[in-house]
Amino acid sequence: MNNHLLLYMRMRDEIKQEAIVDATVNLVNEIGFVSCSVAKIAHKANVSPATLYIYYKNKEDLLVSTYVAIKKEIFLAMMQDFDEEESLRDIFLKCWKNCFSFIQKERAKFQYAEQFANTPFADLVNPDILKHQYLPIQKLIEKGIEQKIFKNVPFDIMLAFIFFPIYTLSNKKVCRSFVPDEKNIEIVFSLSWDAIKY
Amino acid sequence: MNNHLLLYMRMRDEIKQEAIVDATVNLVNEIGFVSCSVAKIAHKANVSPATLYIYYKNKEDLLVSTYVAIKKEIFLAMMQDFDEEESLRDIFLKCWKNCFSFIQKERAKFQYAEQFANTPFADLVNPDILKHQYLPIQKLIEKGIEQKIFKNVPFDIMLAFIFFPIYTLSNKKVCRSFVPDEKNIEIVFSLSWDAIKY
Repeated sequence: MNNHLLLYMRMRDEIKQEAIVDATVNLVNEIGFVSCSVAKIAHKANVSPATLYIYYKNKEDLLVSTYVAIKKEIFLAMMQDFDEEESLRDIFLKCWKNCFSFIQKERAKFQYAEQFANTPFADLVNPDILKHQYLPIQKLIEKGIEQKIFKNVPFDIMLAFIFFPIYTLSNKKVCRSFVPDEKNIEIVFSLSWDAIKY
Repeated sequence: MNNHLLLYMRMRDEIKQEAIVDATVNLVNEIGFVSCSVAKIAHKANVSPATLYIYYKNKEDLLVSTYVAIKKEIFLAMMQDFDEEESLRDIFLKCWKNCFSFIQKERAKFQYAEQFANTPFADLVNPDILKHQYLPIQKLIEKGIEQKIFKNVPFDIMLAFIFFPIYTLSNKKVCRSFVPDEKNIEIVFSLSWDAIKY
């Protein structure tokens, strides 16, 4: 096979997989995790169920893989323009704003991920896969603790005050009245920072 | 009808309603919001579907009412031993610890509420019903802002740092490794307090 053909096939593959992820996200947000099926998702993605089974073993695999893909996207977005030379506060502020804007742009994916985390399917996620994604953030936090910029508290507690408030406030179902404008985003970050700083 | 009979009937009513709430919570946690039905819940609660329809109009009403009942229980638990004479910090610490221990004791109900808040059913809750429950907390926060003990920030943001970290850390599906022992609970409160204090 020549290189052009290979490239074309790979691109076609990626486009199909993206269509499947989008269809999964939108259908689940519409009708819920239990009611959706491989057949319905394939129909929405405009592919045959047989094609879908090339990429995913079954419905569970499709739902879990979609969640993992979204979480990876969030982490990638968070780490955009990461610059180790900046101060820890500036690095965190950037990650933090990146996270907020990803959620604003990708509402449907965020809603899928928030819902997913509270279903029994969440137990099927291999935690090691996501731990790897968290690593740069974990290292930053460890550095901050070492330099006595951050309080020396467990990683979970740190996340509950630095990133989870973004998720909570961005979740329209939980906080109906929060407006994520520049001013409020600055306020939320200052509360986060006061919580974790030494 | 004599008073004894009335009292007996009221008690019987309450026991039945409690059985229905428990059945709803447990069945939803097992099989999800979409798969559960009035018939299945009635069966689990050991009442006839006709009895269930005396208390609830339909499945949606049952799911929403169960959620509202749980939220009311959480608020009631939070306000236990409330003493306006204490310092604002002590009042908050008490509310806050009450909230944590309610969740530890009532895991199934908490899990139901967390899941519910991310489903389309959440849109059916009349926000005014819960606003009324929030009122004592809202007044405390306003008092704290007035006295320059708390930062002057919107109510939603306050909640995201004072009560939501408890929900996040208590949610086994979101934070698998957090251990809610005395020491960690003190740490979490101190971060909350640093976030909101003036």
